[in-house]
Amino acid sequence: MTTTAQRFALASRPVGEPSRDNFRLEKIEVPEPAPGQVLLRARYLSLDPYVRGRISGVRSYAEPTPIGSAPPGDAVSVVIKSQDPSLSVGDVVLADTGWQTYALAEARAVRKLDPAIAPVTTALGVLGMPGLTAYSGLLTIGRPVPGETVVVAAATGPVGSLVGQLAKIKGARAVGIAGGPEKTEYLRSTLGFDAAVDHRAADFADQLAAATPGGIDVYFENVGGAVFNAVFPLLNTYARVPVCGLVSGYNDTEPRWSLPSDLMRQVLSKSLTIRGFIVFEFWVQQFDRFQAEVGEWIREGKVRYREDVVDGFETIPDAFRGLLRGENFGKLIVRVSD
Amino acid sequence: MTTTAQRFALASRPVGEPSRDNFRLEKIEVPEPAPGQVLLRARYLSLDPYVRGRISGVRSYAEPTPIGSAPPGDAVSVVIKSQDPSLSVGDVVLADTGWQTYALAEARAVRKLDPAIAPVTTALGVLGMPGLTAYSGLLTIGRPVPGETVVVAAATGPVGSLVGQLAKIKGARAVGIAGGPEKTEYLRSTLGFDAAVDHRAADFADQLAAATPGGIDVYFENVGGAVFNAVFPLLNTYARVPVCGLVSGYNDTEPRWSLPSDLMRQVLSKSLTIRGFIVFEFWVQQFDRFQAEVGEWIREGKVRYREDVVDGFETIPDAFRGLLRGENFGKLIVRVSD
Repeated sequence: MTTTAQRFALASRPVGEPSRDNFRLEKIEVPEPAPGQVLLRARYLSLDPYVRGRISGVRSYAEPTPIGSAPPGDAVSVVIKSQDPSLSVGDVVLADTGWQTYALAEARAVRKLDPAIAPVTTALGVLGMPGLTAYSGLLTIGRPVPGETVVVAAATGPVGSLVGQLAKIKGARAVGIAGGPEKTEYLRSTLGFDAAVDHRAADFADQLAAATPGGIDVYFENVGGAVFNAVFPLLNTYARVPVCGLVSGYNDTEPRWSLPSDLMRQVLSKSLTIRGFIVFEFWVQQFDRFQAEVGEWIREGKVRYREDVVDGFETIPDAFRGLLRGENFGKLIVRVSD
Repeated sequence: MTTTAQRFALASRPVGEPSRDNFRLEKIEVPEPAPGQVLLRARYLSLDPYVRGRISGVRSYAEPTPIGSAPPGDAVSVVIKSQDPSLSVGDVVLADTGWQTYALAEARAVRKLDPAIAPVTTALGVLGMPGLTAYSGLLTIGRPVPGETVVVAAATGPVGSLVGQLAKIKGARAVGIAGGPEKTEYLRSTLGFDAAVDHRAADFADQLAAATPGGIDVYFENVGGAVFNAVFPLLNTYARVPVCGLVSGYNDTEPRWSLPSDLMRQVLSKSLTIRGFIVFEFWVQQFDRFQAEVGEWIREGKVRYREDVVDGFETIPDAFRGLLRGENFGKLIVRVSD
C-alpha cells in the first residue's frame, strides 16, 4: 500500500487561462485520521467549471482556495481507515477531497454511495451536484410548462444535458447549444432535443432564431457572453432565466462581452425574470426527491448521461484547462485509482 | 353646457425631453355615445411616467400612441350621457380617457368609484394603478420579511411612498431615495421611513451605503440609471429587484448609463432575482384584496398619501415635463373641471 500521497497545490493564481505552472504536483505523507474522521483514497475526481472561480482569489459565494492548498473537487472515494463507527473500511463515499489522491474527511461530511442506485460515478454528474443544478434551476426557477421552449447552452455537459431532457419530460420543447457538429448531432439523435445549434457557426444567432420560431420561454444560463447576447432578443414576455454559471467568461481578465444595453428595459417591457442561484440553496429540500426521480428516469431510459473519463491523477491540470475551453464531451471525470 | 371639447393631440414624437411642440391643443366636437357607451367629462386626469414610453413610437408592452391621437391617461370622470343601463348621468367613474376634456367610453371598460371608500382622486394614485404597482411588486416579487431592508427610489411618488409604508407594515426597514431635502424630510417625518437619502447629493452612494448598514434585501426599481448603479453593490445574497419602471432614462436618446459590467456575475454569486413586471399582470388576482387592505390602512392612518394637484387642462404638457424631471411632490394630478 502506498504511503505517500500526491496532490496538486495551487502555486499561483491564474491570470486568464490557467497554465500548468499555476499548479504544483507535490508528494505528501498520508495522514492519520483523528476520532470522527476517515482516511479516503480518491477513485474518481470531478472537474467542474466553478473551480475556476475558487482559484481566482476573488471572494464569491465561497472563500477562495488559498495558495499552497489543493483546489476543491468532489471525489468518489474508498474508506481506507475509519475512526468513526458510521463508516467502515471499503465503503465507497462521496466527499469534497480536492485535487489529491488521499484525504482526511470528517465522517459526517461524506455521503455513502449505493452502487445499486446507479454507477457510483453518477454521483459526480447526473445524480450529483450538476444534476441537482439542472433539476432545481429548471423546475424551481425555470418552471417550463407544456409547449414552451427551453434553451440551454453547454448542452452536452452534465447540467445542460439534464436540463434539456427534463424539459422534454415536462412537455416543453428543448433546444440545445453546443460546440461543433458531433455534439449537436448527439443532442438531437441520442438525447432527443428538438433542435441543436452550433455556437461556433458564423450565423449562430440566425440559426438560434430559426430553431426557436415561437421565441424562448426559459433560457437556462450557464455560459454567458456571446450566447446570452444571441438569446436575449428572443426571450418571450414572462421568460425566466435561471443563472447557474457564466463559464465563457471565467478566464476573462476584463469584461469581454457587454451586456445588452437595453437589458433592464427588456426586463421591464417583457416582464423577464433573471435569477441567479447556487445549487446548495436547494440541496436540503430537494436532493432526496431529485435523486429518486432522476434515478428512476435513468433506470427507465428516459434520462441518458455521458461521461468523459480521463485516466491518471497527473492529467488534472490539462483536463481542467480543456474543460474551460469546452473540449470535454460529457461529464469530465478523472480516474485517479481503481 | 360646453359643446366643444379640448384635447392634446400628439403632434410629433419627442426626441429626448418632450417639448410643448410635441403636443397640439385642439378643439373637437363633443361626440355622442352609441349604445353601450357613455360620454364622460374628465374631472381629474392622472399623469404618469409610462406615458413617455407610449408617445415614443417604440413598441413595448403596449402599442404606441398614434400621431394625431391623445396620449393615454386615467381620469376620474363624470357620466354626462349614458347609453348603457349600468351607468347613470352623474356617476363618478374611472376610465382611461387620455388627454381630453370629454371622451366616449364603453360602459364595461369604466369602473364606478365609491367616494365612501376614500376621496375619488385616490383611484389615480394610492388606491389605483400606482398603488397596485407598489403592492403587487413589493409583496409578490419583493417579499420582504421582518428585519430586512427595502430601498425604493422616487420615494415620495405614488408608487415609492406606498412601497416604503408597506415595507414598514411588513416589519422591514424602509429606506427612501428622493430629490432634495424637503422630500427626504417628508419621508422620514411624515411617512415614517427609517432613512432617506437625497440622490442629488455629491456623496449619494456613500450616504446610501451608510443608510443601509445591513445591505439591501429588496430594491424596488422604478428609476434606473445612477441610482441603480449605487444600489447594486449593496444588494445582499438572495436580494430581490422588482422592476416596474426606469424613469431616469425615459428621455434618453441613447444609453446614458451603463449597467454594472459585473451585473450577471453578481446575479450569479449573490443569487439575485431581477424581475420586471407590468401591473396588469396582477390586476385581476390582486386588485380587490389590494383595495380592501390598503383602503383600510388609509382609514386607520397606517398609510398616508400625498397628491400634487395642478389646475387646468392647458397645464398638461408642462406638468408632464416636470414629472419626468421629478419636479412633482406626490401623485401628480391635473384638475380638469370640478
